[in-house]
Amino acid sequence: MAHTTRDKEKLLNRVRRIRGQVEAIERALTEERDCGEIMHLLAACRGAIGSLTAEVLEGHVRSHIVDPDGDSKRARAAQELIEVLKTYVR
Amino acid sequence: MAHTTRDKEKLLNRVRRIRGQVEAIERALTEERDCGEIMHLLAACRGAIGSLTAEVLEGHVRSHIVDPDGDSKRARAAQELIEVLKTYVR
Amino acid sequence: MAHTTRDKEKLLNRVRRIRGQVEAIERALTEERDCGEIMHLLAACRGAIGSLTAEVLEGHVRSHIVDPDGDSKRARAAQELIEVLKTYVR
Amino acid sequence: MAHTTRDKEKLLNRVRRIRGQVEAIERALTEERDCGEIMHLLAACRGAIGSLTAEVLEGHVRSHIVDPDGDSKRARAAQELIEVLKTYVR
Repeated sequence: MAHTTRDKEKLLNRVRRIRGQVEAIERALTEERDCGEIMHLLAACRGAIGSLTAEVLEGHVRSHIVDPDGDSKRARAAQELIEVLKTYVR
Repeated sequence: MAHTTRDKEKLLNRVRRIRGQVEAIERALTEERDCGEIMHLLAACRGAIGSLTAEVLEGHVRSHIVDPDGDSKRARAAQELIEVLKTYVR
Repeated sequence: MAHTTRDKEKLLNRVRRIRGQVEAIERALTEERDCGEIMHLLAACRGAIGSLTAEVLEGHVRSHIVDPDGDSKRARAAQELIEVLKTYVR
Repeated sequence: MAHTTRDKEKLLNRVRRIRGQVEAIERALTEERDCGEIMHLLAACRGAIGSLTAEVLEGHVRSHIVDPDGDSKRARAAQELIEVLKTYVR
């Protein structure tokens, strides 16, 4: 079973929150809100997509790349990679 | 009038497309699609938010910061800034 | 006088620190250090370049785009821009 | 043998080029060059560090995480990851 299936509910909740953020941007534009507010909503939305991406990437590395019966050195290297990735994706 | 008002329809169309992309991610998770596909949808969505952000930032600089009656040197400096920003936001 | 002239010493100190970080990466590669360490050095170096870039962009907006004799609304809009930029560049 | 050892010369050449770019930024600041030029040098330097990082990450995934005697599905998943990573790091 894929990690996106196992973590399905958690990931879906995150995506729905992001959809809510995109709808808030749409509303802010429709209501002709202050452009500073729109810039902040955009930055927050991008951050949320980054966090979701980091989670999907982490699951991908752990479930599809690392062999669960492999040696502990490869699991450690995967952990190192995941930590570094978070600084780039977020 | 703010640039987000003047460019309202264009910006709204972009936001709606992004909402469609977020809904596609939601659907892909619900249908338990391949995680590689989900990673690509996420990267494309982030790119689209980056492009929208670049557009809002550009409008913000041109409408709210640069004085339309100011000297041409400041307008050129704003243009330089906008070009550099695009490489970071996108 | 340009802001990069006024802030010259401060900016030069930052660049020299970045050069030191790049030399540390070079050394780590030469000494065949652990690749996890190299990934961390690279992430830190990128962060330092981002911080320096944010500083140069801020100075650019304040010195070359905002008119010092302009109205306070434009100065406020510039401040908003600078805050948003930092989240993207860093 | 680690990938950073095997690709040592190639990676070192890249780092040395980045050091040259940092020195060019230092020189541009010392000579009080135009701030637009400095912004472009900074963006190029960040791009070069991103490319080097992508290369080190790719080597890390291939050498330290993927088991060379493992199944081809894991190798394919690693390839997918590497492609996605490049869009984030660069």
